[in-house]
Amino acid sequence: MIKNITGNIDFIENLRGKKATFMLALSNTHTANIPGITQAGIPGMLHLTPTLDSEFVCLGEVRSLDNIAKTPKGVPTPALITRAVHLLHPYSRVELLDLGLEVSPKIAYAKIHNFDMKPSRRIDDGAGIEAMEIFQKAVAFGQNYKCQDDYIILGESVPSGTTTAKATAMALGYDVENKFSSSFKDVPDDIRTSTINDALKRIKKDDDIFNTLSSISDNMLIFNAGFILGLNNSTPIVLAGGTQMACVLLVVNSILKQMEGSIETSNLSLCTTKWVNEDKNSDIEALINMCDFKVNTYYSDFDFSLSDHPALKLYDEGEAKEGVGAGGALMYGFLNGLSKEMITAKVESFLQ
Amino acid sequence: MIKNITGNIDFIENLRGKKATFMLALSNTHTANIPGITQAGIPGMLHLTPTLDSEFVCLGEVRSLDNIAKTPKGVPTPALITRAVHLLHPYSRVELLDLGLEVSPKIAYAKIHNFDMKPSRRIDDGAGIEAMEIFQKAVAFGQNYKCQDDYIILGESVPSGTTTAKATAMALGYDVENKFSSSFKDVPDDIRTSTINDALKRIKKDDDIFNTLSSISDNMLIFNAGFILGLNNSTPIVLAGGTQMACVLLVVNSILKQMEGSIETSNLSLCTTKWVNEDKNSDIEALINMCDFKVNTYYSDFDFSLSDHPALKLYDEGEAKEGVGAGGALMYGFLNGLSKEMITAKVESFLQ
Repeated sequence: MIKNITGNIDFIENLRGKKATFMLALSNTHTANIPGITQAGIPGMLHLTPTLDSEFVCLGEVRSLDNIAKTPKGVPTPALITRAVHLLHPYSRVELLDLGLEVSPKIAYAKIHNFDMKPSRRIDDGAGIEAMEIFQKAVAFGQNYKCQDDYIILGESVPSGTTTAKATAMALGYDVENKFSSSFKDVPDDIRTSTINDALKRIKKDDDIFNTLSSISDNMLIFNAGFILGLNNSTPIVLAGGTQMACVLLVVNSILKQMEGSIETSNLSLCTTKWVNEDKNSDIEALINMCDFKVNTYYSDFDFSLSDHPALKLYDEGEAKEGVGAGGALMYGFLNGLSKEMITAKVESFLQ
Repeated sequence: MIKNITGNIDFIENLRGKKATFMLALSNTHTANIPGITQAGIPGMLHLTPTLDSEFVCLGEVRSLDNIAKTPKGVPTPALITRAVHLLHPYSRVELLDLGLEVSPKIAYAKIHNFDMKPSRRIDDGAGIEAMEIFQKAVAFGQNYKCQDDYIILGESVPSGTTTAKATAMALGYDVENKFSSSFKDVPDDIRTSTINDALKRIKKDDDIFNTLSSISDNMLIFNAGFILGLNNSTPIVLAGGTQMACVLLVVNSILKQMEGSIETSNLSLCTTKWVNEDKNSDIEALINMCDFKVNTYYSDFDFSLSDHPALKLYDEGEAKEGVGAGGALMYGFLNGLSKEMITAKVESFLQ
């Protein structure tokens, strides 16, 4: 039910039955405001997607808008999957990382880590990120974080995050053509490509890595990289995401190179969805293999083949692939006795 | 679903819904190399059985050989049952005790307690066990062990372990004729009896108990007895096994007698399978009742009557009965809401 992309199954099998903290890294980049660049959310309300996603995962309802985030074609957010698993076999706790949200989630009692960050600007406008400051906050957070469970699952919700991730990987010098996923089935490459090219034009050859990240990435990429380095292999962590999380690994890799450092990665892993793993327009395995360190990576062998719901069938047709930690949520479900049937039925129950 | 052999159900009912550490005591005795003495494993590869069993329980695959251990008649290892429960309702953690394995399990990340022990020799060749040293290591392990869950389930995988157990009980002076189980339906009594008789001839009347154990038992029997005495009733423990685990209780009993000691046994129990409990060639209840202390013992009321799979039907025909903690695994499943249907279906899924 959980299959390898790289490495072996031993790491994940050792987490079977263990308790997890589910963390959700949330941020906004104004890159999402570029018309047509993403379908992760409601047109005109794209900036609300991470807010709504976190409300739905924590509460089962959205408060900052009348409806749960859907793409223009009606694909519901992967937060449905993450919530379904939380209902069937709850995460021990959910913690939110506010990495620069336009609108704070309206959730009393939830643990929301606030880092006093602002949404970043469009990458074709220089992004305007205080990369070093975010990185330092993240390293400190990782160094001081005391996990109360056996491991961390770290998901994300960042509208247009695959565009900023692809731009970031290119700016850092990785050859990633056709390797980055998108929330679209038919990726709107013209808009995406021109945005990325405009962004890359702003990068100077002799910029150091933090200057580069300041002008072309998003807060989540920088923060998660710093968080991983701060944890320093002390706590098992599963990056729950697709090519954006793979880009986090590339950022870690580039920072280590620049600093001439290294880390142990035996407790570092990534788990995505089958939709990402089988996506013909991207190649997560190739991205992971660009890292100089070894890392165990997986995908959860789940699809909606047991469902007749037209909105869910769109996932299997490639219209949505990952997000809100869905791949890691499915992994957690499988590691705790849930079946494809149970998860499918629970997701369907949200759509009735 | 869990029925009493001796004592009452209160102990086990108190563990309903609680968290368990599943421990697997693994060792080799060259007694298994005597042709025809056991069917727990692949001919010529019998020594690999505990290694393969532990790989399958932890990972769902075997690494030290191409196939999972089967008897010559095609009965699959009870590790399938133990793994099935781990998938449906995971043990909180699995820990392996390497008590002298020929081949170490190839499992990264698993907690493997290594005690620097060697496989023991054939009991008709004097076994050559450092019994006192093993016992002392085990007592220290029990005294220092901090269970991170509510209780321990302690299973075993020791090829030809029923032969060494029977020999041990006889050498300690218990009248156990027709009371010890075997992995065979039709027990090959000639080979077994002659081996045991040859072994018993080496025992001197005035040997103390550790000298006796050195020449006729196996590492698991001595270690588990020491572990129980070291725990000293501080943690609830379920011995997950049949007549071999009953023999562990007899070893505890004899050591206590020799030392003129006693222990509280309110947290000590045993749970085996229905196949052992109903076995006409053995009598686990009689073995348990030879102990001077009281102990709550159980069997899990599970069989493969819901399955049509020919390999599994062999269990119901008496060809395999217990091992790899199967009885305790079933108990844990039943204590956590699993049904006979669910467990049967999951075991069948391994054989497709």
